[in-house]
Amino acid sequence: MKKTLIKNYAKLIARVGGNIQKGQEVFITAETEAADFVTLLAEECYAAGASNVFVEWKNQKMEKLSARFESLRALSAVEPWEEAAFSYRADTLPVTIKILSADPDGMRGADREKLTLSSAARSAILKPYNDRMTNRHQWCVAAVPSEGWAKKVFPEDRAGAAVEKLWELILKTSRADGKDPLTDWMWHNRALRDRCDKLNALGLVSLEYKSANGTDFRIGLIDRARFIAGKKCTADGKYFNPNIPTEECFTTPRRDSAEGIVYAVKPLSYGGELIENFWLRFEGGRVVGFGAEKNEEALKSIFAADEGASYLGECALVPYDSPINRCGVLFYNTLFDENACCHLALGRGYTNTIENFAAYSRSDFEEMGVNDSSVHVDFMIGAEDLRIDGVTKSGERVRIFEGGVWAF
Amino acid sequence: MKKTLIKNYAKLIARVGGNIQKGQEVFITAETEAADFVTLLAEECYAAGASNVFVEWKNQKMEKLSARFESLRALSAVEPWEEAAFSYRADTLPVTIKILSADPDGMRGADREKLTLSSAARSAILKPYNDRMTNRHQWCVAAVPSEGWAKKVFPEDRAGAAVEKLWELILKTSRADGKDPLTDWMWHNRALRDRCDKLNALGLVSLEYKSANGTDFRIGLIDRARFIAGKKCTADGKYFNPNIPTEECFTTPRRDSAEGIVYAVKPLSYGGELIENFWLRFEGGRVVGFGAEKNEEALKSIFAADEGASYLGECALVPYDSPINRCGVLFYNTLFDENACCHLALGRGYTNTIENFAAYSRSDFEEMGVNDSSVHVDFMIGAEDLRIDGVTKSGERVRIFEGGVWAF
Repeated sequence: MKKTLIKNYAKLIARVGGNIQKGQEVFITAETEAADFVTLLAEECYAAGASNVFVEWKNQKMEKLSARFESLRALSAVEPWEEAAFSYRADTLPVTIKILSADPDGMRGADREKLTLSSAARSAILKPYNDRMTNRHQWCVAAVPSEGWAKKVFPEDRAGAAVEKLWELILKTSRADGKDPLTDWMWHNRALRDRCDKLNALGLVSLEYKSANGTDFRIGLIDRARFIAGKKCTADGKYFNPNIPTEECFTTPRRDSAEGIVYAVKPLSYGGELIENFWLRFEGGRVVGFGAEKNEEALKSIFAADEGASYLGECALVPYDSPINRCGVLFYNTLFDENACCHLALGRGYTNTIENFAAYSRSDFEEMGVNDSSVHVDFMIGAEDLRIDGVTKSGERVRIFEGGVWAF
Repeated sequence: MKKTLIKNYAKLIARVGGNIQKGQEVFITAETEAADFVTLLAEECYAAGASNVFVEWKNQKMEKLSARFESLRALSAVEPWEEAAFSYRADTLPVTIKILSADPDGMRGADREKLTLSSAARSAILKPYNDRMTNRHQWCVAAVPSEGWAKKVFPEDRAGAAVEKLWELILKTSRADGKDPLTDWMWHNRALRDRCDKLNALGLVSLEYKSANGTDFRIGLIDRARFIAGKKCTADGKYFNPNIPTEECFTTPRRDSAEGIVYAVKPLSYGGELIENFWLRFEGGRVVGFGAEKNEEALKSIFAADEGASYLGECALVPYDSPINRCGVLFYNTLFDENACCHLALGRGYTNTIENFAAYSRSDFEEMGVNDSSVHVDFMIGAEDLRIDGVTKSGERVRIFEGGVWAF
């Protein structure tokens, strides 16, 4: 891949994704394999004014070894210094950038039960720190290829060629392949906002989903929640783009309102394993039944995280003809696949959809019906023939999606 | 390089270097570029019984960016969570493994003054934690090639070939290229111990160095200090090999005793820069004059670390015909180059040379004349014609080295 394109992409992440301001600290999480890109990105962060760029390096193979050899107790522990690092970030609110590149099923064969239990134990300890950061800091998730991931997407190609192809796709779908991605994203953010304005003008109270694949589902929306998209805003007014790419308009559903059945239309990479051809049945908001053709145990492990993991936290609308879906490739990575079609998310509900969110506390949000959990797992239900009807405050039915795409 | 050889090398580091015992924690420091080897090493650590293997990843390019863009204040800071990590290690005493692979002059062009000042500030804060670990935990330093390092050693070769050649050399000089490196090291440790037994039987009180290159130097040895080599022992009796490779027999000199001039016979890689053709003059133990044909400023920066950096902490004897010198390659890495010929070290004196060291405190050691500093910088003075005479307690002169090699 051309170095200028990759440099532009790094700049996009620093300036539009994190929107780093002079004097802000930056905290990057990335795989060791992505080191070359990360140093480029760090340089762009400093150039944007970062006072300090700290990288927490991850290594999926090390995680797999830990899961294999460490006791549940060792794996579940949050050491004092690790907690001190989370506490420091909750106090100092650095701009947080996560660079994804791990192999979508690189954890295949690891002890899933140990991972589920230890991850739940760690999340319970760390959640207060993450909660303290919610809506208060700029953050961005983006991706770069690794050999493992690229070979998963392009199994027929040799590693080098697969990586090159995945780079092309990432830059294209991230709208980072033009001459001036920063300006392209200004227009993209504006188009997404216009779409949300139209949706919000309808005053929807619920959504009903139907598809020939069996999906037959209703969900209520929170009264004060709006549809939002593209760039977001911290409580103190700093804009940022949490996802690169992003094509979705999303809102927050009422925790207790989901009813019916939904069928996934894409595999889900969760904890380094692929869950395929699965369905979920809801009653009173809660998952009461589920099944998967492949890796049903991994699906089940999501619900083991905590009580809130069995409820929904997000409804997102993405037309089936989105640029990401049109490229015809399955990324096996939620950041991309969720932007290919409509999706829902199990677990934590976003609160930045709530009008004037800075004025409310966590308990206010819970009272409004926002779900809480240590996890947030998106899964794709946007079939080619998906029909979505909205019901407005005045009881009127409005067609939102028809044949998988916007009806208006 | 053959995978079995590399696996054997990893095993050597885990079993002989760290001598990891069942249930011990392991803390590895390594460059992100060495990730493939580190996962192999971690597997060997777990197989040896480690309860937990934590890797602190380094990245030289990130360090260079920090030096360029961060303020002196940001660069000098030890954040609370970072200090908590040092404190945790001082409490829990994990087996510590350092894998070197950085480019010997990868920091060329960085702001040296900023690096020197920030490093001194950080060392002052962290020294108490490091002091608490001294002689109390197993540790090992070993190396794996990186492209930058390999290209420095073999500038005529393409990167891939240079890496392969450096692998071969590392395995050969580390005595890890045989069928059973663990047994080879048992014999190697025994041979080194025999050599030390002979030296210690002499009851030396001082050493005198002379070479045609201008070296003319005397230094006094600490009364209770012995020559030690190869495997070392923690205060509670756990053996470990702190350096792979190691060929030296070393002891601890009296802080105030160095007199005369020494000329370096190999370049010194310090802080990612090469110092070449340098000399040091001592009076009353202290450096009172110095010069270098290349990077004199980097040499000067060593003394800026603290007061003790201008005094000597180690005298090591290595014959000029050592396997590392015989391979005829300059590694630009002290771990190897110091094992090619006789050397001294500026800064911290080792205290594990003192008989019954576990019975003494830091202030006892200082009273005995052991130098203290936050740095320990070896430099090579073992010329081809080096002559070393020892003076015994009874005033007798004994020839120790003649023509750069053992005289007995």
